[in-house]
Amino acid sequence: MKIIITGGAGFLGQRLAAALLQENALPFDELVLADIQQPNTPVADPRVRCLALDLTQPGASNRLIDSECSVLFHLAAIVSSHAESDFDLGMQVNFEATRQLLETARQRAPAMKFIFTSSLAVFGGKLPPLVTDDCAVLPQSSYGAQKAMCELLINDYARKGFVDGRVLRLPTISVRPGKPNKAASSFASGIIREPLHGQPSVCPVSPELALWLSSPGTVVSNFIHAARLSAAQFSTSRTVNLPGISVTVRQMMAALADVAGEQARARVSFEPDETINRIVASWPGNFDIQRGLDLGFSADKNFQQIIRSFIRDDMPQGGS
Amino acid sequence: MKIIITGGAGFLGQRLAAALLQENALPFDELVLADIQQPNTPVADPRVRCLALDLTQPGASNRLIDSECSVLFHLAAIVSSHAESDFDLGMQVNFEATRQLLETARQRAPAMKFIFTSSLAVFGGKLPPLVTDDCAVLPQSSYGAQKAMCELLINDYARKGFVDGRVLRLPTISVRPGKPNKAASSFASGIIREPLHGQPSVCPVSPELALWLSSPGTVVSNFIHAARLSAAQFSTSRTVNLPGISVTVRQMMAALADVAGEQARARVSFEPDETINRIVASWPGNFDIQRGLDLGFSADKNFQQIIRSFIRDDMPQGGS
Repeated sequence: MKIIITGGAGFLGQRLAAALLQENALPFDELVLADIQQPNTPVADPRVRCLALDLTQPGASNRLIDSECSVLFHLAAIVSSHAESDFDLGMQVNFEATRQLLETARQRAPAMKFIFTSSLAVFGGKLPPLVTDDCAVLPQSSYGAQKAMCELLINDYARKGFVDGRVLRLPTISVRPGKPNKAASSFASGIIREPLHGQPSVCPVSPELALWLSSPGTVVSNFIHAARLSAAQFSTSRTVNLPGISVTVRQMMAALADVAGEQARARVSFEPDETINRIVASWPGNFDIQRGLDLGFSADKNFQQIIRSFIRDDMPQGGS
Repeated sequence: MKIIITGGAGFLGQRLAAALLQENALPFDELVLADIQQPNTPVADPRVRCLALDLTQPGASNRLIDSECSVLFHLAAIVSSHAESDFDLGMQVNFEATRQLLETARQRAPAMKFIFTSSLAVFGGKLPPLVTDDCAVLPQSSYGAQKAMCELLINDYARKGFVDGRVLRLPTISVRPGKPNKAASSFASGIIREPLHGQPSVCPVSPELALWLSSPGTVVSNFIHAARLSAAQFSTSRTVNLPGISVTVRQMMAALADVAGEQARARVSFEPDETINRIVASWPGNFDIQRGLDLGFSADKNFQQIIRSFIRDDMPQGGS
């Protein structure tokens, strides 16, 4: 039995791989980490195979998927601001590569669990205060549109028995370690991470904006949980709004001061960026998570706990 | 200025072409009717050009769209039951060909009005009694999934200024003239048309099933109206649930008896077909049509009137 992670060099892919290798949560003989640049393994383990692979190349999915594959975690994507500035690349990676993976799974491994990471960016326009499973998607970014198209395709492939698809709409992940990226939501980690490292950080959105957040650890647990559910548990829709917590930027700043002191909060300044604000403000800030909880997915307790997890897991020397 | 109709050999394409040629509702110098089989022109007119074209072939859209094109009515599609039995053909025609047309429009005619016919088949699962613009799509057929993917793509192309897209979600069309087709909704015309022609007809769904219907004439008027609206009138979403009327099969039968006598109604028998019933029963039977009406789209008055229009327009010798 083989498990594949696309986007295996990325932060979530590495975190997921480490969890799979250390926790014995899913059975496998081989764990394939694939990414456009050769991934490293987060843990030395003979079961790991690392593969440099451009998923937009013809036949790429054939190099990944065979009849031994039991689970594919498809995390590879062009992030939101990047997909907005380079529409064609976004279509190729976010949509076309997903379609090729689905098609190969249909041919070679129809029983495989195809776990796809979608996003709250599928939502936009006028939204109710609490977004439910019945809310129409109305993406205001190409990233959101591409993810929403994949959701439809995966649901149809699952309905027809072509592959055992599951779609997880991820909250914004905070706190990510490392450097800022081209995601419009990059600031949601930066305004916590940089101050904890003693660095200044610029917040491009209003302090009143509510974000829908999950810690990396909770999201990785939810990835693994998605692979353990039976297909029947999803009933009509394979798409799940993953649980998160609703926190305003102001509340994030208060939590930062709470955990790391006033001097940490003082390192964040506010300079509105219209492009980022337009994208992020179109995303919902709060969800009805009953279905996700009923399916056994989990949420973080509060944002203070999220910051403390970051300090524990990603700052070996502790906060500054 | 050029107007293009794909699916130009089809019933709605022919009806639309006739309206454009006879009513002067839209300005044009050339009207191109394209279809996989060479269309005929419904009205002899030097402005008409008929073109046999397989839209799934590479470069096909380049043969249609140039900088002179002002409006494209993209009606070509593989219908619901056919797309369900041949998934790959449905993907090619319903999704991939639409994508190629959009891409060519983006390169050559970004100001062109790209009018796409979607369907109530994008909806499914547990639906409220009255479907609103805010209801999530949850297709229970590949046809619906493919249409919903195109909706997302067109909205994104329009948002980015790549093309001036408009998406019309059509009610089930009744009464279609001619022969039954592979649409799951084919019976919704057959149970009226065949009895009016003195023929028996089998209804595969329950008499209590509510259908969401529009006459061909009203839909064609709405196509033309969609080309006359300004882009700004659509605001956040380019997708419109076209107005229709909600009628149960039993009410359709009563209207048939009303217009054409008891002997017409007696020609319809009921033999449930599980496949058709599963698809059609997943479609909504009633919509909130306020936005459509606010945009100036129209609905039929009642089903009696729809039957009378069919007798007037499509039965030159009158009903049997």
